[in-house]
Amino acid sequence: MSEENVVYIGNKPVMNYVLAVVTQMNSGIPEVMLKARGRAISRAVDVAEIVRNRFITDLELGTINISTEEMTNKEGSNSNVSAIEIQLCKVKE
Amino acid sequence: MSEENVVYIGNKPVMNYVLAVVTQMNSGIPEVMLKARGRAISRAVDVAEIVRNRFITDLELGTINISTEEMTNKEGSNSNVSAIEIQLCKVKE
Repeated sequence: MSEENVVYIGNKPVMNYVLAVVTQMNSGIPEVMLKARGRAISRAVDVAEIVRNRFITDLELGTINISTEEMTNKEGSNSNVSAIEIQLCKVKE
Repeated sequence: MSEENVVYIGNKPVMNYVLAVVTQMNSGIPEVMLKARGRAISRAVDVAEIVRNRFITDLELGTINISTEEMTNKEGSNSNVSAIEIQLCKVKE
């Protein structure tokens, strides 16, 4: 999957990301991957559910992966943060 | 799956839930389901990752499901909240 098809979920309002996903899908991309870390994980699930229930109803949830990523903070020490990847696929007609 | 095998993730510290999962698994239950809603979703992912990486290394992630649940708040109006279910299975020896 190319980087174009990835939507990174951060701290912006949920609807910003919903719009990003819907725009990508409507431009013909059949598959979008949502990626989020830490507290944004809940927001990623919200985005997937809102797109699926309200905007693109012929959307299927693909694989959902969780993992741990190591991050280096400002002071230079490492900490672990959880991450999630949610695959959204448009059903072929 | 019986209700005994479900660990509901709420607002307590992560390690409380990690301990609950590890205790259940060590008592011989081979499969535990984590369930969380709303902001606790990120914490559920943390719990799964911490158990898997630090405590029970022969643990496999099973199915991960996301969904939307309708909740009624104090004022009696309905709102939607995202939910996650993460299945953790002990690998058979």
